[in-house]
Order: sequence, then C-alpha cells, then structure tokens
Amino acid sequence: MTSTHHDANASASVCTADPSTATRVWDQLSEDARMSRDEPLVAGLVLDLIDGCDTFAESLARLAAARIATPEIPRHVLTKEIHAVLAAHPPLMDAVAADLQVSFERNPAYPNHLVPYLFAKGFLGFQIHRVAHEMWNAGRVMAASFLQSRVSEVFAMDIHPAARVGSGILADHATGIVIGETAVMGDCVSILQGVTLGGTGKEDGDRHPKVGNGVLLSAGSNIIGNISIGDNAKVAAGSVVLFDVPPFTTVAGVPAKVVRVGEPDVIPAEDMDQSIAR
Amino acid sequence: MTSTHHDANASASVCTADPSTATRVWDQLSEDARMSRDEPLVAGLVLDLIDGCDTFAESLARLAAARIATPEIPRHVLTKEIHAVLAAHPPLMDAVAADLQVSFERNPAYPNHLVPYLFAKGFLGFQIHRVAHEMWNAGRVMAASFLQSRVSEVFAMDIHPAARVGSGILADHATGIVIGETAVMGDCVSILQGVTLGGTGKEDGDRHPKVGNGVLLSAGSNIIGNISIGDNAKVAAGSVVLFDVPPFTTVAGVPAKVVRVGEPDVIPAEDMDQSIAR
Amino acid sequence: MTSTHHDANASASVCTADPSTATRVWDQLSEDARMSRDEPLVAGLVLDLIDGCDTFAESLARLAAARIATPEIPRHVLTKEIHAVLAAHPPLMDAVAADLQVSFERNPAYPNHLVPYLFAKGFLGFQIHRVAHEMWNAGRVMAASFLQSRVSEVFAMDIHPAARVGSGILADHATGIVIGETAVMGDCVSILQGVTLGGTGKEDGDRHPKVGNGVLLSAGSNIIGNISIGDNAKVAAGSVVLFDVPPFTTVAGVPAKVVRVGEPDVIPAEDMDQSIAR
Amino acid sequence: MTSTHHDANASASVCTADPSTATRVWDQLSEDARMSRDEPLVAGLVLDLIDGCDTFAESLARLAAARIATPEIPRHVLTKEIHAVLAAHPPLMDAVAADLQVSFERNPAYPNHLVPYLFAKGFLGFQIHRVAHEMWNAGRVMAASFLQSRVSEVFAMDIHPAARVGSGILADHATGIVIGETAVMGDCVSILQGVTLGGTGKEDGDRHPKVGNGVLLSAGSNIIGNISIGDNAKVAAGSVVLFDVPPFTTVAGVPAKVVRVGEPDVIPAEDMDQSIAR
Amino acid sequence: MTSTHHDANASASVCTADPSTATRVWDQLSEDARMSRDEPLVAGLVLDLIDGCDTFAESLARLAAARIATPEIPRHVLTKEIHAVLAAHPPLMDAVAADLQVSFERNPAYPNHLVPYLFAKGFLGFQIHRVAHEMWNAGRVMAASFLQSRVSEVFAMDIHPAARVGSGILADHATGIVIGETAVMGDCVSILQGVTLGGTGKEDGDRHPKVGNGVLLSAGSNIIGNISIGDNAKVAAGSVVLFDVPPFTTVAGVPAKVVRVGEPDVIPAEDMDQSIAR
Amino acid sequence: MTSTHHDANASASVCTADPSTATRVWDQLSEDARMSRDEPLVAGLVLDLIDGCDTFAESLARLAAARIATPEIPRHVLTKEIHAVLAAHPPLMDAVAADLQVSFERNPAYPNHLVPYLFAKGFLGFQIHRVAHEMWNAGRVMAASFLQSRVSEVFAMDIHPAARVGSGILADHATGIVIGETAVMGDCVSILQGVTLGGTGKEDGDRHPKVGNGVLLSAGSNIIGNISIGDNAKVAAGSVVLFDVPPFTTVAGVPAKVVRVGEPDVIPAEDMDQSIAR
Repeated sequence: MTSTHHDANASASVCTADPSTATRVWDQLSEDARMSRDEPLVAGLVLDLIDGCDTFAESLARLAAARIATPEIPRHVLTKEIHAVLAAHPPLMDAVAADLQVSFERNPAYPNHLVPYLFAKGFLGFQIHRVAHEMWNAGRVMAASFLQSRVSEVFAMDIHPAARVGSGILADHATGIVIGETAVMGDCVSILQGVTLGGTGKEDGDRHPKVGNGVLLSAGSNIIGNISIGDNAKVAAGSVVLFDVPPFTTVAGVPAKVVRVGEPDVIPAEDMDQSIAR
Repeated sequence: MTSTHHDANASASVCTADPSTATRVWDQLSEDARMSRDEPLVAGLVLDLIDGCDTFAESLARLAAARIATPEIPRHVLTKEIHAVLAAHPPLMDAVAADLQVSFERNPAYPNHLVPYLFAKGFLGFQIHRVAHEMWNAGRVMAASFLQSRVSEVFAMDIHPAARVGSGILADHATGIVIGETAVMGDCVSILQGVTLGGTGKEDGDRHPKVGNGVLLSAGSNIIGNISIGDNAKVAAGSVVLFDVPPFTTVAGVPAKVVRVGEPDVIPAEDMDQSIAR
Repeated sequence: MTSTHHDANASASVCTADPSTATRVWDQLSEDARMSRDEPLVAGLVLDLIDGCDTFAESLARLAAARIATPEIPRHVLTKEIHAVLAAHPPLMDAVAADLQVSFERNPAYPNHLVPYLFAKGFLGFQIHRVAHEMWNAGRVMAASFLQSRVSEVFAMDIHPAARVGSGILADHATGIVIGETAVMGDCVSILQGVTLGGTGKEDGDRHPKVGNGVLLSAGSNIIGNISIGDNAKVAAGSVVLFDVPPFTTVAGVPAKVVRVGEPDVIPAEDMDQSIAR
Repeated sequence: MTSTHHDANASASVCTADPSTATRVWDQLSEDARMSRDEPLVAGLVLDLIDGCDTFAESLARLAAARIATPEIPRHVLTKEIHAVLAAHPPLMDAVAADLQVSFERNPAYPNHLVPYLFAKGFLGFQIHRVAHEMWNAGRVMAASFLQSRVSEVFAMDIHPAARVGSGILADHATGIVIGETAVMGDCVSILQGVTLGGTGKEDGDRHPKVGNGVLLSAGSNIIGNISIGDNAKVAAGSVVLFDVPPFTTVAGVPAKVVRVGEPDVIPAEDMDQSIAR
Repeated sequence: MTSTHHDANASASVCTADPSTATRVWDQLSEDARMSRDEPLVAGLVLDLIDGCDTFAESLARLAAARIATPEIPRHVLTKEIHAVLAAHPPLMDAVAADLQVSFERNPAYPNHLVPYLFAKGFLGFQIHRVAHEMWNAGRVMAASFLQSRVSEVFAMDIHPAARVGSGILADHATGIVIGETAVMGDCVSILQGVTLGGTGKEDGDRHPKVGNGVLLSAGSNIIGNISIGDNAKVAAGSVVLFDVPPFTTVAGVPAKVVRVGEPDVIPAEDMDQSIAR
Repeated sequence: MTSTHHDANASASVCTADPSTATRVWDQLSEDARMSRDEPLVAGLVLDLIDGCDTFAESLARLAAARIATPEIPRHVLTKEIHAVLAAHPPLMDAVAADLQVSFERNPAYPNHLVPYLFAKGFLGFQIHRVAHEMWNAGRVMAASFLQSRVSEVFAMDIHPAARVGSGILADHATGIVIGETAVMGDCVSILQGVTLGGTGKEDGDRHPKVGNGVLLSAGSNIIGNISIGDNAKVAAGSVVLFDVPPFTTVAGVPAKVVRVGEPDVIPAEDMDQSIAR
C-alpha cells in the first residue's frame, strides 16, 4: 500500500495480533483524544469513552454498550457483561487493536486512529461480534443472539455469533454485511459494504463460505455456499460467487468468473483495489 | 425442508394463519422465556417483553414500541397505539404467529422461537408494517408514515405502508429490503437482505412487482416494475428482474434470465436454496 | 415528470436553490403540520419539530439532533452546533428546501411535504451531510466525522464529509448509500438505495466518481473509481460502473455497458425510470 | 369558605366521594386542557396526560408513572400496574376526584382544576398513596413500599402504605409530610407542609395519631403517638401535640395547649385559618 | 461579615444588582470551571453547563432545564423557553449574579462561586422562580405553574410565581421553603430551610407576609399572615410569627416574642447568626 | 428495644461496624430478593440492583448512582466513581451494613432488610454522604459537593461532606435533615425528619453541634451552634436547642429546656421514644 500516512511494513505484520499492539494503539488513542478536547461536539464523547476509562478494554466496553443498549438492557448492564468477556479473554483486545491498526493503515480517509475507533461502525460491529462469539462458545446463546441482533439493528451488519473471524480485519462502510453461522474468515481480510457470506437452505450444518487470509471482498458481492475463497484472492464489486476461488485469483460478474490469476506481489486486502481490471 | 429441528408438514400449513397458531406460539415463547431467566444479559428483556405481558399482542406492542420510539413519540404512546390496532384486527396476530413459526422452521440458525421473536429485525419489521398497513387503510397517513420511517431507520427495511403482504413470511437478515407502494407479496414467501421490489418513476399508479406464493427472493436481487413473479418461482442472488417470471421458474443474472423451469416438488421459499444451479 | 400531484416546470427550476424556496417550503410544512395535529401518533412530533420552532433552520437542527444524538453527545448540544452551522451558512437552507421540494415532486408516494421532511431518511441524511461538509471545510475533522458516523449508524448512509453535493437531490429509500471522500455530485441528481460512489485503494488522492447534473443512479449500482458520469446520464439497477459514462447515456450490467444513448428530452433524475430498457 | 371562585355548599358535600364527581372533574380537566394548548411550555404535557388518555384513570396512571419512574422500573411498567389497581378499585377514582375538587375549592391560588391536577405534589402524592394502600392490603408489601419510597423521594412526602386516609383531602405545599403506619385520617382534612403524624418506638403495634373529619393540621406541626384529634379540631402552625385533642378545639405551642374551644359554625379544614388566634 | 474568604464591603453593595456584577460573576464561574476539569465526576457537568455555553444566561437556562425537565416537557424545550425569558428581561441576570455573589460571601462552606452555582438548590430554585414570575406577569399561568411545580418537586421549595422577591438573596439548605402568592421579600434577605411565608384561608387577596431588606429568616420558622417583618429584623429558628416585627428586632418562640431590639451595626442577613441570644 | 421482629442484643453490638456484619447483611438482602421476584413492580429493580451484582459494594454503587445521576453525570460514570471509593475504603461497607441492620431493628415498619435498603432515602442518603466524605478528605471538593447536592435534591437531606458521622445510624423519614460542615455525630444515633444540626454565621471555623453516641434527635428539632449533645441524650420533637445537653438527658421546647435526667437503662436512639414525657 502506497499511502503516505502509514508504514506498509507495519501493516503487514499487524494482522496477527499481539499485546504490544494493544498497548501501542491505546496510547495512540489517548494521544489523539488530547488533541480533540477543544472540539465542542466531541468533547463529551472523548471525556466519557477515552479520558474516563482506565483501560482499553473498559473503553471498548463503554463504547459498545453506549451504541447497542436498549430500554430493557441498559448501558451499565451491557458494559459490565462486555467488559467481563474482554477481561476473561485477553487475546480479544489484541485482535481489536489489530483491526483498528489495519483500518487506519488501509483507509486513507482516516486522519488518525480515533476516527475509526469512535466512528467506524464496521470496526465496532466486528469487535462486538468477537464478544458475542465468546459468549456463543460458552453456551450463552441468548446473550450472543442479543449482541448479534443489536449489531444488525444499529450497524446494519448481521454476523452470526458462531462465525469464526481472524484478526487484522477492515470492514469499510459495512452497511449490509451478512456473515452466516458456519462462515470462516482468515486474518488480514478487507470486507466492504453489502457483502454477503451466505448459506443455502438445503444444507443443514456446514453451509457458508470459508475465506482465506489477505482476501478483498469488494462492495455488494454475494458469496454463497460452503465454498472456499483462497488466500489473497479478490472478489470484485457486485459479483455473485457460487464456486471455489483459488488463491491469488480475481473473480467478477454475476455469476462470477475468473478475470485474473497470479499476482503474488500484492495482498488484495491491503491494496484495496476494488476494480475488476487488476 | 430437511432440517431436523422442525416438522416439515407443519411448516407447509402454517403459512396461512389461524388463531390456534397464535396461542401455540405465545405459549412457546413463554416457555422459551422461562429457560432464559438465568442469562443476566437478557433477563431484563424477558422480564419486560414476555413475563410482564398478559397477552401476545401486548408483548408485540411493547417490543415494537421499545425499538422504534423517538424522543418526541415516546414508548408508552407507541405501545398504546400499536396495541389498539392489534386489538382491533385480530387476524393480525395470526399472521404474526405464522411469520414467527416459519422463521423458526426455515432458518436452522434459530435455536428456539424466542430468538427470532426478540432478535430478528426482519421479523419485527414486517410485523410493524402490518400495523402501519392497517393505519394506512384507515386513512391515518401520517401515523403509517411514521412507522414506515422508523422501520427504515432502525431496521434498514423500507416497506411502504400501502404494500400488501401475505402471511408465512421469512425476512432473513433483512438489511436493505425495499418494498414499494403498489407491491404485493403472497403467502409463504422468503425474502433476503438487499431485495428491492421497486417501481419506476414513469408509471404513476400501479408500478411495483406482484410476488406470488412460495417464492424465494434471494440476497441482493432487484425486482423492478409492475411485473409478476409466479407462484413458487425463485430469484437468484444478485439478479435484476425486469420482466414477468412464470411459476416454478428460477431466474438469475443482470438482467435476469430463466435458468431453470419446472420443479413442482419443492417450494423455494421453504427450501431456501439461494444458488443459481437449482 | 408526469405525476399529477406536482407542477413539472417548478420541479426543473428548483434544483438550483434560492431563499424564496426555503420560505415557501417552511410555510408549506407549517400548513401540513396544522392538518396533522389530530393524529395522536404524530401530534407530539409536530408539536416539537414544527410548531415549537421559530425558524426552518431551528426545526431542521432539532430534527437532525433528535435522530442522531448519543448518550455522550446529547440532543441539546447537537441542536446548538447544527443550528450554528446553518445560521452561519444561509445557502444551506436553500439547498435543504430544494431537496425537499424535488423529493416531493419526484416521488408520487409522498402525500405532502411533511412526510419526506419528517420521515425520509434519505432526505435528512443528506442535510446532515451538508452540515458535516461545512464543519469539514472549517477544519473540524472530528465533529464532521461524528456526524458522518451517526448518519451511517442511524440511516445506513455513509457519506464522507469531504464529498461535494449539489442541490435538488432525491435520495430515495437510501439504505446502503456510500459516497467517498473525493466524490462529487451535481445538481438535480436522484440516487437510490444501495448505490456506492466508491474509490479504490491504489489511488491516494482523487479517487471517487464525479457525477453530473440530472443523473439517475438506480438501486444497487456500484460506481467505482475516479470516473465521470455525464450530465443526464442513467445508471441502471444493479450495475457495476468502472469507466466514464457520457452525457445522456444509459449504462447497465456487471460490468456496465452502454445500453442506450441520446435522449435529450428527458432528465433521468426527474423521470425516475430505473428500468434498463430506456 | 368565602372565596369567590367556588361554591361553598358544593365544597362541603364533595368530601365524600361519588362517581358523578369523577366524571365531572375529568370533563373539567379536559376543558381546562383545551385552553392550555397554546402555551408552548405545557402543550406536550397536556397532549400526553390529558388529550392522549381515554379515561381519567389512564390519565392519572400516566401522570403518576411519569413522575415516579426509575431506571429500573420504567414508566410503562408503572403505568400498567397503577392503572390495574385503579381499574380494580373503582371507588379510588371517586376519592381522587374529591381530593382534586376540594383542592381547587380551598386554595384560592389555583386558577383552575388543571393546575392542582398536573402541578400540586400534595395532591398527586396522596393519590399514589391510595394505590400503594390497595397494594399493601393485597399483600404486595414490596410494590407498596416502592411507591411509598418514590413519593418520599420525588414529593418529599412519606406516607406509610398501611395508613388509612379518607377522601376530600387537601395537602397544601406538602413538603415534609410524614404519616406513620397505624395513622388514620378522616374525610375532609387539610394538611400542610411539615406535618408529622408520628409514632414512638416504645409502642409496637397501634402507635400513630387518629385524625377526625374536618381537621386542619397547620404547617410544621408534629402530632406524635396513638392520640386522637377530634372532628373539626385545629392544630396551629409549629405545634407539638402529644395528647388527645377534643372536637372543635384549637391547640397550639410546644408542647401544644388548648387555645380555643367550641366553634361549631366553621370547619377548620375548609376555613384554612392557620393562625393561633381563632 | 468576618469570614476571611470574601470582602465585606463588596457584600453589602451587591444586594442591588447591576450588569457589571453579572459579567464579573460569569467570568469567575468560567475561571472556577477551568480548575475543575480534572475532576472526573464533574468534568461532564462543567463541559456542558459552563464550557459549552456562550453566555451566562445560556448556562443558567441549560442548568435549570437539566434539573426540572420531565418526560413530557423535555430539556431542549425548557432551555429555549427559559432562555427566551432571560433574554427578554436583562435585569434578571443581574439579580441572578447578585444572589450568587451573596451566597458565596455569606456561606463560609462554599469554596468558590461554582459550588453554589452548580450545586446549591436554594440558589437555583430562586432563579427559576424569577423566570416563573416573569411568565406569571405575562399571563402565562400554566407555564409559571409548571416551573413552580418542578421547583417544589426537585428542590422541595414551593414559591408561588406571583410572589415578589428582591435581589441579593441567600437561600441556604432551602428544603421546605414555602412562599405564598402575595408574599414580598426585599433585597439582601437570608432565608433558611423549613421557612414558611404562609397565608391563612380566611383572607382572600393580600394574605402573606411582607419581608423587608436585610432580614434573616432562621431555620424552621413559620411566618403567617399579611404581616410585616421590618428591615434588618431577625426571626430565630423554630419560631412561629403571627404579628408584625419592627425593624432591627429579633423575635423567637412559639408564638414568637421580641427577644432583642435595636442593633443598627449589623445586618442580620449578612451576619447569619441564627441563635436567639443576639 | 422490645420489638418482636429482631434480637435486642444484636442491635446493641451492631452500632460498631465489622466485616462479618457486611457479609451477613448482603446474604440477607440476596435472600430477601429471592422472595421478591414474583412481584412484577419490583422484579426489574431486584434484578438490576441485587441479582445483577457480584458484591455488596457494587450493588450499593449501582443503587446510589441510579438515584442521583443527572443528564451531565450519567449513571455509569457515577457507579464507577462511587464503587472506586467503596473499594478503596473497606470499612465503609461495614458502616453501611451497620446502618442497614439498625434501621431494620429500630423501625418496626420494615418487614425485611430489603425494604430499607432499596426504599429508605434516609439510609441511602447517609451512605452517599459516607462516599462524599472520603472524596472531601481526599481533596476532591467538587466531586464531594456534587454528591451532597444530589442528595439534597433527590432525598431532601443536606449533609455537608466534611461532617463526621459514626456508624449504626437510623435516619427515619429523613426529609429536611440538615447537617453542617463541622458537625459530628457519634455511633448509634437515630435522627428523624426535619432535624437541623446548624451553625451560625458569626463563627467561622468550628460552628456546628457535636452529637454523642446513642442520641435520639426527634422530628423537627433544630440544634444550632457548636454545642454538645451528650451520650444517650434525647432531643424532643420540635425543640430548638442552643446550649449543651448533658448525657442521659432529655430536652424539649422552644428554646429547649431539660425535662428529664438520668435514665441509664435505655439508649434513646434504640428506644425511639419521641415523646417529651420520658
């Protein structure tokens, strides 16, 4: 990626999360916050969600709860429950940090880390999914379904809590994303608005796509069925994909056909080129 | 449908609503609720929306009002108005029950009836439309438009209150659904995210699609104009449909073409097979 | 436009905004409000957002703030900030009025001006973008990003605050609209649900579409890259557009191809014909 | 009572409640409301609490719930529970109406019935006590205690739910009123701010005052112990009463002594003369 | 007054309000606010009610509205109405400033001006009364009664909107204060908790006390009837006053008797000596 | 104390707090809560404030925050700050438990521990004071003043955060209690509504009463100045106390005089006899 506002090497490595990234990102957010205190429209936001928090996990729990609370499940209950899951699963915050770092790096429209943290629904929707996924794994079906439901209502992203998602994910714009129960996403994936990883009713059981590392899923594409999207593949905008896509391959069209193969020098998720041409 | 968690015969019959289904579904919801009281994240929800309600209609009115209330139209006013419409039109709760029953039956990801009832925005969005439709028929244009507007904002589903909708509807994921003023949907339809039943500006008057019984409208498909989608037809994912589709026919592509005809043994809306192949 | 509920000549002229339109539209809204006071479901809404306001700008500021306030940025803070921007930039209310007027004229489903004003998220989403755009121009990046974020969450419309938008815009249904940082839209454009004016990651800098005057962008179309959509062009539903489109030309398909050229007698944005045929 | 704004004869009879008073008072409130719609500061209040209600009982339930709801016991739950008690005990609304009627008649500062109904905390505090008292009689100790608690917090009136209270009560200003568990108040009583009907810890069981009909309890007076205040007696401001007071007798001082006896021509509760002299 | 934290001479002069005091006090509040930003518990308060306001009047309107808003009369409506009254009557802010200045000077427990401004209910209750009084004078009986009612509920102070109140008032602790319709208070008065300026029902018309300048009304005293409390008089704690009190005189007891006369060297309202001895 | 619903020996010892009492009281509250789940009006309260809390301190922090939160200092911020103080000062919860235990024991109207815990504002007001006192001691003047202010507004109790208060306190009814900056209360005190421990303006510095152990301060009494109320003394209702009161002595009247001396067999705070006679 050639954007001048980040270091391309850092981008590549951060897709696999580690605790030092979380520390670094939280420090960065606190610094970004300091420079936002004079903006009257966001001063209260920064005060509550950054300055008022002792840890990154507390901040994320407050942020998530503020967005998805309902009259019946108020903010303080949600904050407590989300924070408990984050505290019990330390690697979650590493993945959170990796997602935030790659979001900043891949999207030239973000002026700092604070903007995607506070304002990118694609980022926050995936982080709440990570919490819902742990609840699902712990057998808390109703709790996980509640989180899924609120992410669907508030962010227009419907990710089944059973779906497995790697780290280093950019979910840009994000409206209309649908990810089914048995779907899998690898590390370092970029997914845009209107993308469906859907199943088909015929298959009970494993029935959703398996997406590899480094993949770019462009806007409005439908990937349907228990098919494989190979590492570093690209699905062009508006495509309908019904069959396996090999690694380092671009598919496009309705239904999708291979339009290009073999480009080992570029990771599509980082390159973010949504055109069919490449 | 081969899913093990429901009875296929019951599925077929429930598309046409009747009072016994409503009674049975409300009992089921109450029973599901009993098993959810130990989950701290949803205990308050269940207490308010199931345990605290004397009737199914009261529960639905509270649930709908809680989601779509605004600072100016508060929850208690909405609850009263929605409940009054449900009480004045008893068949509405039969259609509500039919929708919930088929949602449970057609979607293997739902572990019980309570999950789609409380958490599936597609389900709730259509039920609020049913209320808005009665208000529209009664000449309450502003009230109906308010409900439509809130469903569009909160659930990202835009259903004109004049649109006529049958019973036994599954609206899965549901983000981006648009249904125009003169559209008609039959019984036993499954409609997925990103589906538009749209009009064209040239035609004033009857200008939206007419969808038959048993139809499956797959993800991201655009059906545009005063055209007919025959009983038990299927529109594949990502299609743009501009002409009539005969019964028992599958169409796909941009623009959509017929890819398969004649399969009298399967109801697409129940089969939920979104692939183009069948 | 042939709809009987409006004057086609007025429609054409109103795309370029002027103060008299704003006065006329606000008077019309007040009159529409008077006829809505007996509807219990919206009486409180009208009381707060029309009757309780001294000016059109105050009404819009209250309306916008009511929809996008958060627990941390409460309604009264937002109302003040939005109103201050509107007061400092008088032409903004002219554009607001033009958008409302063309929304009423182009959409036969709206019975009066009050319905799109209070209830059309596409309308309100673009007006909040106008405010965010002025904040962005004034260097208030965080404030502008907050507004963008809330419009994305509440209306499922993601419009970068730097994007330049003309007047006389109809955004119908609007769910899923994405407009990138360097995109430009002319006057008198109609844009429907699921339309993306997207960039590609390769290009840092000017990387989004430039849309001319009078253009119709139909449902679910993806327009990607720094390409030009000529005046009075039409993009058909579900298209993926990757190359320039000349004026008075219709494109369709994935990828989009020219399907019709030369129709100087009709402005597609006003005609609202989404079919591929014309 | 000689005030020109009411009929003294009606005043005397209304202390004993009957259904026709309730009908008359509700009609009067609706008429008062009609004349208040142009006041922007209370238009929303009147819309919600008078115009939006089908019955007097619904109005009172909404009014009470709006004032005493908490984050955990929200308004709609309270409205339902209070309304259910009012509906199950029809004489309650008769007592409500009697209290409102005498409040208007005895207090020359009230310009209409609507002011004490919406704005007099003494009036509303006693009505919520009537509901709590029925809950207490039905064995709902926790529910009754919750209502008592909220009246104490919001209105600064602490009335034990077991206390028995007649009808035709004026509680003027009302801050600091305390009425103990075994206290009894007759009909047609006027009680002012800072009055305590208290017990003493030595006596378990019946340990609070018994107040007869027509009594005036002036501001800041403490009546303590299982003593009797005879019909038509008067307790002067700031008195501490520790012994029985005979009928038609005025007591004053710390501790209170008899300062006047025998004035059969005046009912102190209606006369509202707080001075010691008479 | 001998407290070391203020200038006694300034205290005496500030009882009569002027615009320069308002400017000085608002500057002082802004400075106090700067030193409070690091306290997490009040940072949001200061941000909203001081930093976020352009003028002293806007700050007061926000502060008052935040405390007395109800579900039916929300904060933004109240802020607007209160601010409009303050803007239309500039001397009101002078009186506000005078009250705040004397509160700081007479009460050694206040560490700065910000504490009584944000936290002293006696101060805020009187300022809302000033607004209600102007509404009453303008014939807005319902609006004025609403403000009176909310001050009674939230601050436990019941001040009839017709009552006339001077400037330079300290209302310390304030719980239980009752001031009747025809009562008058001069300048430079100190009034404590539990004080009643009450009427008697016999007198229709002018029936409440007239309190002169410089008077101290000690805790729990009841002053009843159309009597005069002379300039620089003192009413001792717990007294019941039924007759005129001459200037420079101290009364005490139930009923109150003169206990001291003639002390022209001390203003009781500034001296704040509640004992009977002096 | 002779009430049959508690053990008198336990009562005497609990005034001095210890950790085992806190454990026992929290267990008792949890048990009381179990028996309250079927009461629809308080089920949500119990769910949030007892069942949903892991510790007694978390429960108290939530309870306090729910009652005193404002639009600018929301519930979750308050919960965090209050909980942090409780966690940093473990003896606080011992005092909380002691107050709750003696409240139950001395007041025969409480059917269990849960009623005073959830519903007695006198109890909760003193516990919030304990938190404010620690903030004051830590130099957090603004935070402490905020808590004081909210207790004054919501509970009508004004306790200066610098005031020192022992454990084993019953504050019955509590409206109107005022406790000044340099006041001191010992252990095992009972204080009723309308009691002032006030200062006089002449004295800067130590200027409020010092109340010993075992004292009963009856309703409406004013104790003013830097005077001493000896151990096991009693102040009768409505008294005004201006001089020292020896131990085991009862005073009454305005001004108060000694009415009884020497009763070594009874602790007035436990006996709760408010009459003057004993």
